[in-house]
Amino acid sequence: MYGFDEIAGAEIVWQSDALARREISPLELTRGYLDRIEKIDHQLNAYVALCTDSALETASAAEERASRGERRGPLDGIPIAVKDNIDVFAMATTAGMSARRGEVAPTDAAVIKRLRDAGAVILGKTNMDEGAMGGTTDNSFFGRTEHPWKSGYTPGGSSGGSAAAVAAGLCSAALGSDTLGSIRIPASYCGVVGFKPSFGLISTRGVVPLAFRFDHVGPLARSVQDVALLLDCLAGFDPDCLDSRAAPTTRRLLRLQDQPIKGTIIGLLRNFETVNSDPPVREAFALAVRRLEELGCRFEQIEVLGYHPREARRAALLCCEADAANTFASIIADAPEQLSEQVRNMIAYGQNLAAPRLARAQRLLDRVAFEAHKALASVDIVLSPTTPQHAFPFGNKVPDTQGDLTSLANIAGCPALSLPMGLSANGLSLGVQMIGRIFDESRLLALGAAFMAAADVRVGRPI
Amino acid sequence: MYGFDEIAGAEIVWQSDALARREISPLELTRGYLDRIEKIDHQLNAYVALCTDSALETASAAEERASRGERRGPLDGIPIAVKDNIDVFAMATTAGMSARRGEVAPTDAAVIKRLRDAGAVILGKTNMDEGAMGGTTDNSFFGRTEHPWKSGYTPGGSSGGSAAAVAAGLCSAALGSDTLGSIRIPASYCGVVGFKPSFGLISTRGVVPLAFRFDHVGPLARSVQDVALLLDCLAGFDPDCLDSRAAPTTRRLLRLQDQPIKGTIIGLLRNFETVNSDPPVREAFALAVRRLEELGCRFEQIEVLGYHPREARRAALLCCEADAANTFASIIADAPEQLSEQVRNMIAYGQNLAAPRLARAQRLLDRVAFEAHKALASVDIVLSPTTPQHAFPFGNKVPDTQGDLTSLANIAGCPALSLPMGLSANGLSLGVQMIGRIFDESRLLALGAAFMAAADVRVGRPI
Repeated sequence: MYGFDEIAGAEIVWQSDALARREISPLELTRGYLDRIEKIDHQLNAYVALCTDSALETASAAEERASRGERRGPLDGIPIAVKDNIDVFAMATTAGMSARRGEVAPTDAAVIKRLRDAGAVILGKTNMDEGAMGGTTDNSFFGRTEHPWKSGYTPGGSSGGSAAAVAAGLCSAALGSDTLGSIRIPASYCGVVGFKPSFGLISTRGVVPLAFRFDHVGPLARSVQDVALLLDCLAGFDPDCLDSRAAPTTRRLLRLQDQPIKGTIIGLLRNFETVNSDPPVREAFALAVRRLEELGCRFEQIEVLGYHPREARRAALLCCEADAANTFASIIADAPEQLSEQVRNMIAYGQNLAAPRLARAQRLLDRVAFEAHKALASVDIVLSPTTPQHAFPFGNKVPDTQGDLTSLANIAGCPALSLPMGLSANGLSLGVQMIGRIFDESRLLALGAAFMAAADVRVGRPI
Repeated sequence: MYGFDEIAGAEIVWQSDALARREISPLELTRGYLDRIEKIDHQLNAYVALCTDSALETASAAEERASRGERRGPLDGIPIAVKDNIDVFAMATTAGMSARRGEVAPTDAAVIKRLRDAGAVILGKTNMDEGAMGGTTDNSFFGRTEHPWKSGYTPGGSSGGSAAAVAAGLCSAALGSDTLGSIRIPASYCGVVGFKPSFGLISTRGVVPLAFRFDHVGPLARSVQDVALLLDCLAGFDPDCLDSRAAPTTRRLLRLQDQPIKGTIIGLLRNFETVNSDPPVREAFALAVRRLEELGCRFEQIEVLGYHPREARRAALLCCEADAANTFASIIADAPEQLSEQVRNMIAYGQNLAAPRLARAQRLLDRVAFEAHKALASVDIVLSPTTPQHAFPFGNKVPDTQGDLTSLANIAGCPALSLPMGLSANGLSLGVQMIGRIFDESRLLALGAAFMAAADVRVGRPI
C-alpha cells in the first residue's frame, strides 16, 4: 500500500493510525526500520548499537496484541531510538565514552520503562558527543554522525545521533537529553522537532548525569503532535528520582486543539539581542514572527533583568564541569587516555575549579532563573531562533554562540520546543525556539502545532 | 498594677492584652525595656546597639493609636530585639564582624518592614557569633554574651544575644537567623522557644547571608503562642527575594486550637541514635516523650535513608564556607586582620575548597532532603532533643555534636521548633526539638503549644 520510505518518514500519529487500522503491522514497521538502518546508517552513523532481537520480540508482542484488538495505545508497536546516555536493560550505556563500553545497564531507565509499558519498541542506541559535552556529535571513539541532508556537516549535538535518526527516517522518534540545548540544537540543525520539558516533569533516573540541576530528557520527533504523544507517556512524578517534581498538570497534554492561539502574547527577549544570529536565521525568524502574527499572536519586547546569555551559559558550563569531575572521577583517575583531549580538559577544569567560583555561578544562575520566571509571567511564550546558525561543516570552529539561546530554558527549568522554521539558501534547516512557563507544556505545544500547521516548513524526511 | 520585672518577662500575648486594655502603654513598655537593658545588660551583653530614639518615637506613635482605639493588631507597641545580621534602617549591620561596623543599612530588611507595619517597636541589635559562624556568641570584637541564668556559661549561638535578651526579659521577643541551628541551639541553652520556619516562608531579604540554601530568619520568644503571633506577621511571599517561596498555607497560623493533638504520629529518627546525648538530655527527653504519649501522641521509629547527621552537617558546613568566601571576599582580601583566626580559617577553607567537593556535598544534601521528606510523609512530626548537651562554660571545647540534631531541618527546609523540656541537676535548661513537614507550621506549632501546656517547664524569666 505504501513504500517503506514513505512509512519510515511519517509521523507517529500517522503510523499509529495505520497500525490501528492494521494497514501495517508492528513487525513490518520494526523490520522496516532495522532494514533501513542496515542500508543507510553506514552513511550516517546515527546508531552506535542496535537491539535487534529484543526489538523484534517486542514488535511480535505488539503484533499479537494488535491481532487481538488489544493495542495499548498510540505508542504500541512504535519503534524508538535512544540516546546512548540513557539506560536500556542489558545494553552498554556508553554516554559516548570509550571507557564506558562495558557499562551494561542492569535495568531500564525510568523513561524506557514507561515506553515499554506503552508498547513501544526500543530499536537501539544513538551516537552523541562524548559525555554529552559538545554540540557536534563528532565523537572520537564512535565516529561522527553525519548531517542527514548534507554529508560532511554536523547534525549538531549532543543528541546528534537521535536527531539524525529521526530526520533520516531511521526510527519513529527518539529520546535525547538536554543540559544546555542538547536536544534543541540538533533538532534545529537537522530540521526536526525537539522538546525539552519542564525540569522534573520527565524522570532522569537511569540517565548518565552531566549537570544535575540542568539535565532533562525529552523527545525528538517529526511533529509537535508526536512530541505531545511521547510526552503523555514519558511525563509523571517519579518517587525514586531526586530531581522529579510533582507537576500540577495531569490532564492529557495531547489535546492541543483545546488551547486558543489567537491573543497569545509572545515575548521577544531584549537579552538575546547581544547574540549575533546569521542573516539567514534572522530572515527566517522575521518570517516566523509574521506567521505567528497572522495567527493572531501579539508580540512584546521583554527583558530578563541581569541576564547575559553568554555569561549565564558559561556559569552553567562551570556546573557541568564540576559535576562531570565527580561523575567521571574514576575514568579520569584510572583511564584518562580513554578520554578525548577536549573532554579531559573540561573535566580537569572542573577538578581545578575553586568552590566559591562554583557557588557564585550557581547564585548567578538562581538569579537568572528567578528573573526569567518573573519575565515569563508577563507573556505566554518567549520566541527566539533555536541556534544563531545552521549546521556547519565538521572541522569548522564550533560557534561560541551555539548554546546561547537554548541554555536559558535549562537554567530556568522552563519547557522549550525547537521547530523547523525554514531553510537557508544552501538548503540547511533553521530552527525557531518557543519557551513556555514552567509546567505550562500544553500552551507551548499548542502554539508549536499551530505554527507548524501554518508555516510551510520542511521536516526531516528520508535521505 | 504590675512591677516591670513581671511585665518584662511576660509573653507577648499577655503584654498585648494589657496594652489593649490600656493597663500598660506602649511607651511604658518600651521605656521599661530600655531601662532594664541599661540596668542589666552590662552583665549579659545581649545587645550590641540600641536605637533608643526611634524606639521611643515608634512607641509614641503606637501610644497615640492605642489612645484612639486604633491598635493595628497584637504586635502594635511590642518591643522586639533584632540579631545584628538583619538590616535595620540607619543602623550598622555588623553580622558580628568588626570590619562591618560601618555597614549602615540603607533600608529595613523585609522582616523589619513587616514588624514595623504591624506597629512593633525595634529596640536594638543583639550580639552573635562572628559572621554567624559559631554556636557560643563568644565574639572577639563585641564580647561574649553571658548565659542569662549562669555567668561564665555560653548562651549558645549564633543567635545568642537574641536568646539571652528574650530569656532575661530585655525585649518581648527577638529575631534570629538559623543556618544549621543558630536559633534553636541558643533557644535550647537559654530555655526559650526558638522557631525556624519552612525554607522560603519568611523572607531573608536584607539579611547577611551565610549559606543561601540553608539560611532562615525566625523568632525567639517566651511561648509558642508568641511564635505563632510573630510568624503571622513575618511570613509571606516576597517577590523581591530570590529564596522566597509562595507557601500553600495562608490561613492564620495562630489558631493552634484548631489542630487535633490526639492521634498525632511522632517519628523518632534512628539516624539520631549515632549522636550521643548527655544523660540529663536523655532523661528529660524520655520524660517529654511520656508527656506527649499522655496527650495521645503515638510514637514510631523511622529512618531517613542514607542520612548520617555528622556527615550531612559537615557537608552543609562546606556550603557555608564556600558562600562565606564570596560574601566576605572583600574583608578577607582587604582587612583579614579584622577577622578572628577561627573565621579567617573557615573562609580560607572555603576559598581553597575544590568545586567538585562542594558539588558532591550539595548532591549529598539534596539526597538527604529528598529522603527526609519521604520519611516525614509517614509521620506528622519528628521529635528529638534540640542539642545533645546543655549550656557549657566559655573556654570549654565546643561539642562537635552541637548542631547534629538541628541541621537536618535546614537541609530539608522543614519547620522546626525548640522548646524547653526541663532542667539539668545544675539548673540549666534542656531543649526538645519538633520538626514538621515543609509548610505544615500549623500542626507543628499546635503540638508545641500543647506540649508546653502539659509539661511543667520553666521558660526564660528575668534574672
